[in-house]
Amino acid sequence: MQREAARLLQTGKAIAFVPTMGYFHEGHLALMREGRKHGDALIISIFVNPTQFGPSEDFQTYPRDPDRDASLAESVGVDVVFAPEAEAMYDKAYQTYVDLEMLPQYLCGPSRPGHFRGVATVVAKLFNIVRPHVAIFGEKDYQQFVIIRRMVRDLHLDIRIIGVPIVREPDGLAMSSRNTYLSEDERRSALSLLQALQQAHKNVAQGIRDAGQLIHEASELIRSYPYTKIDYVAVCDPETLENVSRVEGPTLMALAVWVGKTRLIDNTILTIDY
Amino acid sequence: MQREAARLLQTGKAIAFVPTMGYFHEGHLALMREGRKHGDALIISIFVNPTQFGPSEDFQTYPRDPDRDASLAESVGVDVVFAPEAEAMYDKAYQTYVDLEMLPQYLCGPSRPGHFRGVATVVAKLFNIVRPHVAIFGEKDYQQFVIIRRMVRDLHLDIRIIGVPIVREPDGLAMSSRNTYLSEDERRSALSLLQALQQAHKNVAQGIRDAGQLIHEASELIRSYPYTKIDYVAVCDPETLENVSRVEGPTLMALAVWVGKTRLIDNTILTIDY
Repeated sequence: MQREAARLLQTGKAIAFVPTMGYFHEGHLALMREGRKHGDALIISIFVNPTQFGPSEDFQTYPRDPDRDASLAESVGVDVVFAPEAEAMYDKAYQTYVDLEMLPQYLCGPSRPGHFRGVATVVAKLFNIVRPHVAIFGEKDYQQFVIIRRMVRDLHLDIRIIGVPIVREPDGLAMSSRNTYLSEDERRSALSLLQALQQAHKNVAQGIRDAGQLIHEASELIRSYPYTKIDYVAVCDPETLENVSRVEGPTLMALAVWVGKTRLIDNTILTIDY
Repeated sequence: MQREAARLLQTGKAIAFVPTMGYFHEGHLALMREGRKHGDALIISIFVNPTQFGPSEDFQTYPRDPDRDASLAESVGVDVVFAPEAEAMYDKAYQTYVDLEMLPQYLCGPSRPGHFRGVATVVAKLFNIVRPHVAIFGEKDYQQFVIIRRMVRDLHLDIRIIGVPIVREPDGLAMSSRNTYLSEDERRSALSLLQALQQAHKNVAQGIRDAGQLIHEASELIRSYPYTKIDYVAVCDPETLENVSRVEGPTLMALAVWVGKTRLIDNTILTIDY
């Protein structure tokens, strides 16, 4: 891959890159279609990165289907699929990590210690291997998106980071490879995430600005569904991820909810129309 | 600098890079002459990096002489001097750090907490700005050299790291910008560092293999000089920096000694001739 990247660089072609963990759904394909627009060559990676999973998380059971992924990638015009082995990414003496001081402390950070260190590290590594001009990330993982954007600025990587809006199932559930873990009953309860966000939009449209009230009502709605357990419901600055007390401009509402044994996330930007 | 680096990359020129903190002595010039051999274009940076200095260290007083540095750089054929302001390297929301898990714990690590995190971070940043094919580091800062080499491997940077042997004053003192801090009396005591290393070479040649004995004799020699206070004397693996108990192949002997208020370092590779 490094040789191929060096070759592409020399041709002067713009390289677009979509890092993924595979098991593609429409959300991934939307990232690839967006990448297609921004590069002469479109490279994707498929790598279930061990360093971003906690010891009690689903690294081993994370769904994988490389053959289906390859044909889906081809169908949207991907030029190169980079699917390294873990040993090629982390040798025995491996010990270097990229970490951010503030952004990983918010939202998913407290329940997933080390997760964003693993994400920032593997994305930095993939960027150095693939050497893209543009990289595409989904806004479903909003915290990841702002962390990568900040890392790119801080480390002076010459890469444009583009976010793609959440892609949803027909009934509104945000697409995720982890949705396959849900039973039929859990699947119905999973709709509470989007409903809570939609209710917040309505509340803001009706003049409610207080973050505490918005969080309270979202939490009540989610709790009214069976199998749900809230990890967090947060209303925060979309750049710094710091909590805000009032919605006064574009504001991120983000939530993480356990539905049975599956942890789901979703988010939206609340805005005020004048 | 990023624009110039992108332009150079497109021309297909090999870029050699020497990162420095300025206040040049012959050691720096040796790095630049080595760089000259490996690149079509030779870029150096001059940046006294605040994040690698501890709160009680000499960031404010570190010697600076940009005009003299510029003419010395020109005299050895440097093409570009990159001398950024601190605000350009670390903006107000800056928060990303590159850190290694093991290598910074040894040798200078315990007395300089955060130092190697600052070094790895700024070197990663400079590499991303300058985008060199080859980078040159002095072996006087041996721990820094192995840390950078490991970081480059771990992060898949496509950069060849070359080490240059220590350059010494006529009387044997390893060149350092900090030597200017020494009084005349301290300057004489500073010679104990090299003498301790030379004595270790003799001891090994005479069949002594025990690391403890080598360390003891080196320490005794250093302590026999006035104004000296040992930070560490270590005998260790030159790749992992882990202490070894016996000299059985190429082995790093490294030391850090306070001479008055100046902390000096020196090192050598002990080898066994059969």
